[in-house]
Amino acid sequence: MGHNVAQKLIATHLLSGDMTAGQEIALRIDQTLTQDATGTLVMLELEALDLDRAHTEVSVQYVDHNLLQTDSKNAEDHTFLRSACHRFGLWYSKPGNGVSHPTHMQRFGIPGKTLAGSDSHTPTAGSLGMLAIGLGGLEVAMAIAGEPVYLRMPEIWGVRLTGELPAWVSAKDVILEMLRRHGVKGGVNRIIEYHGPGLAHLTAMDRHVIANMGAELGATTTVFPADDQVRDFLRAERREHDFVELLADADASYDVTDEIDLSSLEPLIALPSSPGNVVTVREVAGRQVDQVVVGSSANPGLRDFAVVAAIVSGRQAHPRVSLDINPSSRQILQDLTKMGATFTLISAGARLHQSGCMGCIGMGQAPANGRNSLRTVPRNFPGRSGTREDSVFLCSPETAAAAALTGQITDPRDLPHRLGIDYPHLELPAESSVNTAMLEPPPLARADQAELVKGANISSLPGFPPLPDRIEAPVALKVGDDVSTDEILPAGARVLPYRSNIPKLAEFTFAQIDEDYVGRAHACRGSGHIVVGGANYGQGSSREHAVIAPRYLGLRMVLAVSFARIHWQNLANFGVLALEFTDPDDYHRIEQGDVLVLDGLRHAIASGGTEITVRNTSRDQQYSTRHRLSDRQIAMLLAGGLIPWLRERKSSRSSQPPASHDVR
Amino acid sequence: MGHNVAQKLIATHLLSGDMTAGQEIALRIDQTLTQDATGTLVMLELEALDLDRAHTEVSVQYVDHNLLQTDSKNAEDHTFLRSACHRFGLWYSKPGNGVSHPTHMQRFGIPGKTLAGSDSHTPTAGSLGMLAIGLGGLEVAMAIAGEPVYLRMPEIWGVRLTGELPAWVSAKDVILEMLRRHGVKGGVNRIIEYHGPGLAHLTAMDRHVIANMGAELGATTTVFPADDQVRDFLRAERREHDFVELLADADASYDVTDEIDLSSLEPLIALPSSPGNVVTVREVAGRQVDQVVVGSSANPGLRDFAVVAAIVSGRQAHPRVSLDINPSSRQILQDLTKMGATFTLISAGARLHQSGCMGCIGMGQAPANGRNSLRTVPRNFPGRSGTREDSVFLCSPETAAAAALTGQITDPRDLPHRLGIDYPHLELPAESSVNTAMLEPPPLARADQAELVKGANISSLPGFPPLPDRIEAPVALKVGDDVSTDEILPAGARVLPYRSNIPKLAEFTFAQIDEDYVGRAHACRGSGHIVVGGANYGQGSSREHAVIAPRYLGLRMVLAVSFARIHWQNLANFGVLALEFTDPDDYHRIEQGDVLVLDGLRHAIASGGTEITVRNTSRDQQYSTRHRLSDRQIAMLLAGGLIPWLRERKSSRSSQPPASHDVR
Repeated sequence: MGHNVAQKLIATHLLSGDMTAGQEIALRIDQTLTQDATGTLVMLELEALDLDRAHTEVSVQYVDHNLLQTDSKNAEDHTFLRSACHRFGLWYSKPGNGVSHPTHMQRFGIPGKTLAGSDSHTPTAGSLGMLAIGLGGLEVAMAIAGEPVYLRMPEIWGVRLTGELPAWVSAKDVILEMLRRHGVKGGVNRIIEYHGPGLAHLTAMDRHVIANMGAELGATTTVFPADDQVRDFLRAERREHDFVELLADADASYDVTDEIDLSSLEPLIALPSSPGNVVTVREVAGRQVDQVVVGSSANPGLRDFAVVAAIVSGRQAHPRVSLDINPSSRQILQDLTKMGATFTLISAGARLHQSGCMGCIGMGQAPANGRNSLRTVPRNFPGRSGTREDSVFLCSPETAAAAALTGQITDPRDLPHRLGIDYPHLELPAESSVNTAMLEPPPLARADQAELVKGANISSLPGFPPLPDRIEAPVALKVGDDVSTDEILPAGARVLPYRSNIPKLAEFTFAQIDEDYVGRAHACRGSGHIVVGGANYGQGSSREHAVIAPRYLGLRMVLAVSFARIHWQNLANFGVLALEFTDPDDYHRIEQGDVLVLDGLRHAIASGGTEITVRNTSRDQQYSTRHRLSDRQIAMLLAGGLIPWLRERKSSRSSQPPASHDVR
Repeated sequence: MGHNVAQKLIATHLLSGDMTAGQEIALRIDQTLTQDATGTLVMLELEALDLDRAHTEVSVQYVDHNLLQTDSKNAEDHTFLRSACHRFGLWYSKPGNGVSHPTHMQRFGIPGKTLAGSDSHTPTAGSLGMLAIGLGGLEVAMAIAGEPVYLRMPEIWGVRLTGELPAWVSAKDVILEMLRRHGVKGGVNRIIEYHGPGLAHLTAMDRHVIANMGAELGATTTVFPADDQVRDFLRAERREHDFVELLADADASYDVTDEIDLSSLEPLIALPSSPGNVVTVREVAGRQVDQVVVGSSANPGLRDFAVVAAIVSGRQAHPRVSLDINPSSRQILQDLTKMGATFTLISAGARLHQSGCMGCIGMGQAPANGRNSLRTVPRNFPGRSGTREDSVFLCSPETAAAAALTGQITDPRDLPHRLGIDYPHLELPAESSVNTAMLEPPPLARADQAELVKGANISSLPGFPPLPDRIEAPVALKVGDDVSTDEILPAGARVLPYRSNIPKLAEFTFAQIDEDYVGRAHACRGSGHIVVGGANYGQGSSREHAVIAPRYLGLRMVLAVSFARIHWQNLANFGVLALEFTDPDDYHRIEQGDVLVLDGLRHAIASGGTEITVRNTSRDQQYSTRHRLSDRQIAMLLAGGLIPWLRERKSSRSSQPPASHDVR
């Protein structure tokens, strides 16, 4: 039987395991991507691993998150990251060069390659026929060091696209339709592979939009074939030589299937505060809007800004509306400016911000409490905008532009009769303004003499002890379903600058859910503490800080109904035991403050059993739980995490040759 | 004897007093300017005054300071300010429209008019032949309410300009030369008036640069004549009809004189951390530069950005250098974009930020500790950049551009032989892209029905009681000489968002000097408390928050060796008694915690005596002290401050016609 695109990508990079859904596989990684909010820690991990030089084909460190620089910390992180690129042989993408995902796609993406990124939207590169996976920073550090990436073989979910998008409907509406149908858990343990005749009308940048927000479905990644649209894209980027055709075999099949008739779609919008709350724009039209934000990796393409410019051309943003434009990259801003769209946007009253993630990750642009903000970004988790009681909607650029003009949620299909605006016919340049001047290449010379430049806010990684044989600790926090990494450890302008300073960062742990958690965690520092969670614990971003910070405060175990994949891996990577209830109803029997006891833990785990009994001494109950750790993860967990494990392994094999997949 | 320009401006607006240096004069105010960081409080003051509608010809509320929006507070302030403009009949300049000073000059400036602004760079409008004065917010609120502005008649300092600036030297170097010669106190109690043949070569925007940084000399204001350059400027802004010629009489004279031969100037630079530390660029050339910031009201003109674009055109910023561009206004960004300079700057690697004050006031762009940042902004006070140990230099756009390319402090006159860059010949458009769409006019209808929209962070101005007849209160704090308003109430990104929330703001009072002050003030809330200060108490900015916040905590009196002028006025404005020791040595006899008693206070002050006896019951001592209040200030103080005094007056004259200078 033939292979689909996902299977081909996996098969050509498979180092161990077999391609049966649920089995652990090890993949060779060709490229890595780190951004600054996660990358500082990755660089400290490379330091802790004593890496000589990156072992990948391409590793790029982007600076796109911490750009506000309200004190010295951001600038010192940038200096540190640049020095780390010199030290470890990485590319450095300067502040102002743009968001990692579109920039990586434009400058480095190659069909058929694997990409590991310390950012949950890394799967975006699937738009080019790559296998691109978002991971915790430590796993990306491992990939940079030439180690494989391990994951459970996902199911392959074939989504057949037919038809063509109608006027005023665009790629964002396709992924919102997927979220409308399947919700934020629909993609868990799956790779979404789009195929079918509808693809012919979706450009590589349209696919970027769709692949990007596959992360919001919880998918492991999203893949598209590398077809003529990808060839056209690479040609426009003057990289046609990097094109490799990668198509599913004619007789390929999928584990799960779905179909979307693109011609049947209409403008959609995700209501506050989940990307899964999708309804038609028509259903909520008329609600007052105070802010419109255009940008981010979810709608990063030249087209996405140009269509907004075309719609607002010669008109003015509503007096009440702040129209915030976040160019996704320097290159796209150059093209926008060259084609006159920058002028059009400024004339219409837009606030043009520097290129980068900006408002998407709460770096500025926080709306007023309770005031509606329409955004083309991928996520509207509560508080992510920087405003505690925010009211953020996710929509297409067309819907965003309509609201900017009217000051209300407006179906863009109403613009012709309401404001006399025809659906714009965009004339985009055939070639991009390729400009690589803000990408500093890795030094050619052996780099390991270069010095790491650490500002006062950059502290080396704290060390964590091995797993104890007995845990007896209180439940310092009990939370519900779908707790996101944003809730475990907020992002935003106040917290992000401390991402390279764990002791300080830890003070913000769970701040959005329970301000007293940190105090309670400190109070039981001796015994450590436990968190009890509902289903899909740790959804959202890949930030490993959401493990390291509570771990630093003494977290020994999370007991949950189920876990989001990346967060679950991160827990293992940093030596925190993740257990799931055998009977989910047991979740309701535990209260915050209960003391839980696990005995003979090291032996139980080391001996290969997956079931572990947890006693609740406060209620005289006991619960059956299980872990899903692989042998590799068990070894890590016993050692206290991946870094101590790798250090142990390194010292035990001292003078062995590097792994065979070392391509440099 | 003929009049100079300053005397003509004062004479035509003089409501009381005579034009003898040192005498109190009252001036009629035609226009006001408020920005958001000070304006929220001004609007709360208008609310407390129960103002019907602005009584000025033009009053404009700008939003240019708090643009980062890292949480809901900024956006809620913007909404509040817009509602206040509707309520009180002011113009509203939307976020993104730009910095108040160049925008006001372009859209509202009229030769011969007076302007009062709650921003210390208000004197910038002197570039058009206006008399423009920076004041505390309450005094601007009074001006909006149609009340006069009171000040001591300054000396007029005539600075004669001859010759023409050489290549690579520009207006910034003129004002840096003034600072090099006279330092940051050289202009105190003076109006600087430029005259002479050199003016013919200085455009109105060049004069804006020079007038703006007159504030750094401590000058009351700066004036230029309204001559053909001003006419040309207004013509380019399509406002030639607003031009009125205003020249000094041929036989005018000045109290103080100086002369600068423009042709003799060379590129200058102010070293960290004072605008007065001026040396030639040549003297410090070669020092490493990590950041270059272009923008702010000190170099806001199209020319200032265009010259940077021309210099970096076709080249790249040094890899280590962050080149940050802060367009001063939407209009200027439109013109820059139209002429291709935006494209050039982006291509050269610039980070293009939203239009506004931004890095100039520490709203982002903070450099790394100890790394050199070259800026075209007006001030480099320690920490103003947002970085505690910053190293900020002030220079011209030409010097900034040179450093951006070389990564070192570089005399721009070296660019021809060093990098083959000729001095650019700029082709600027003859007309500006006039665009007023982000300026919302005052409502035509009677506005006093419009509702003030107050977010959770905006609290009404607290009311303060009249001066009591007896004060018996402890000295909650004793401080030394030269305590600044920054030490009384800090600025910065952490504190600024609370400027419209006095109860919250008050928690930061004296935080830099004594963290326990607030607790002690609360503890003696019943009796109120006293602060004892040394010489020059309250030096620095005009922020009235430095009085309101401790007043809110119960401050009844400051007893000091001497006071800084604006802070002393602010104390009277908010009903706090300011007394000076007759014998400065008595300062040393009082200890923190001592209880001081003043009896028969109202009678003593109302009866016209200036000497007041203060008893120290903790030490059985007494001190002779005096106040320097005018009759007007005595009436205010007895009433509890300017606002209650004005309310009393209003109710006593209830149905009188509005003052004769009410032009609406």
